Amino acid sequence: MLFLLSGPSGVGKGTVRKALFKRNPHELLYSISATTREARRNEVDGKDYFFVSKQKFEQMINEGQMLEYAQYVDQYYGTPKTWIDEQRQQGNDVFMEIEVNGAMQVRAKVPDAILIFLLPPDLMQLRNRLELRGTESDKVIDERLKTARQEILMMTNYDYAVVNDKVDKAVKKVQTIIGAERLKAKRLANSYIKILEG
Amino acid sequence: MLFLLSGPSGVGKGTVRKALFKRNPHELLYSISATTREARRNEVDGKDYFFVSKQKFEQMINEGQMLEYAQYVDQYYGTPKTWIDEQRQQGNDVFMEIEVNGAMQVRAKVPDAILIFLLPPDLMQLRNRLELRGTESDKVIDERLKTARQEILMMTNYDYAVVNDKVDKAVKKVQTIIGAERLKAKRLANSYIKILEG
Repeated sequence: MLFLLSGPSGVGKGTVRKALFKRNPHELLYSISATTREARRNEVDGKDYFFVSKQKFEQMINEGQMLEYAQYVDQYYGTPKTWIDEQRQQGNDVFMEIEVNGAMQVRAKVPDAILIFLLPPDLMQLRNRLELRGTESDKVIDERLKTARQEILMMTNYDYAVVNDKVDKAVKKVQTIIGAERLKAKRLANSYIKILEG
Repeated sequence: MLFLLSGPSGVGKGTVRKALFKRNPHELLYSISATTREARRNEVDGKDYFFVSKQKFEQMINEGQMLEYAQYVDQYYGTPKTWIDEQRQQGNDVFMEIEVNGAMQVRAKVPDAILIFLLPPDLMQLRNRLELRGTESDKVIDERLKTARQEILMMTNYDYAVVNDKVDKAVKKVQTIIGAERLKAKRLANSYIKILEG
């Protein structure tokens, strides 16, 4: 299985991902991204990122070796396909942490990927938006509602949505999703059929 | 949401359901079946079953008030539709424990029902079927494989499959499924849209 954790920038995807892997290091394999930017202090090649040259990255794009990629501030970021394919063929579950655009690229190429959308907690507070009316300017409220609409629109492209109000709670919810996906009847039926057929 | 726990007869559906409700009495409402058979000692009308006359039951069938029903040994068993519809309209989650045939009737009428298949643990033991070859007769092995094939075929009509090897483990898996279904993005997006639109 291929799990994707995504969501608006600044929502805390990295924090949730790190806490998840700290809790459950052996259940999932973390998909390491490739990038053309310089390694920062403390960043390790092959652990934090695969650090590659611009030429190498563009070659990988042209050879169809990128599951998804994007360009930010003249640098490439992307997910090499080969490693993920190999892991999945061996029956391992892979976990990616990824921007929204990248997630949509993966969805298009891997229809059975499981997409989890991490939501900012302030979307929850819209429940009280009528109460906000007295305390915030109309402009602030309109901006909030506009952002909220965009986030909800994004959310509908995902399988699951998790509010990142507290990291621990969010991690537990991601674990619940992974646990339930492992109980999907079609997946289990397929593996039983393989056993029956030897 | 409407959750259905089903599976081959004798697999322990009732035990798992009772243990689930003992642990989590307030999260789910249990759908009580109607029957025309006599109440047994200790059985309470409106708690264990709704005990109704044959005439009343047939009238409910004819009026389309039964979500599903079956006849065993000249007695009717079935699920009244009205109560479930009311609970779901109020936003409550309903849980049913039901035979395989009934589950397929509900799936046809309520496409968004969540169907959980409870598996007997001996299906798991098929992993070792080659090891059985020495200890069991060919006839016994063939019977086991035939039953297993039927159960796997049933399973593919369900959303999730849970092995009932230990009641506690099975209950936890059912809770995981319920938890994950509550995190489905489409469901959450719908409720956010309602909030945004007041």
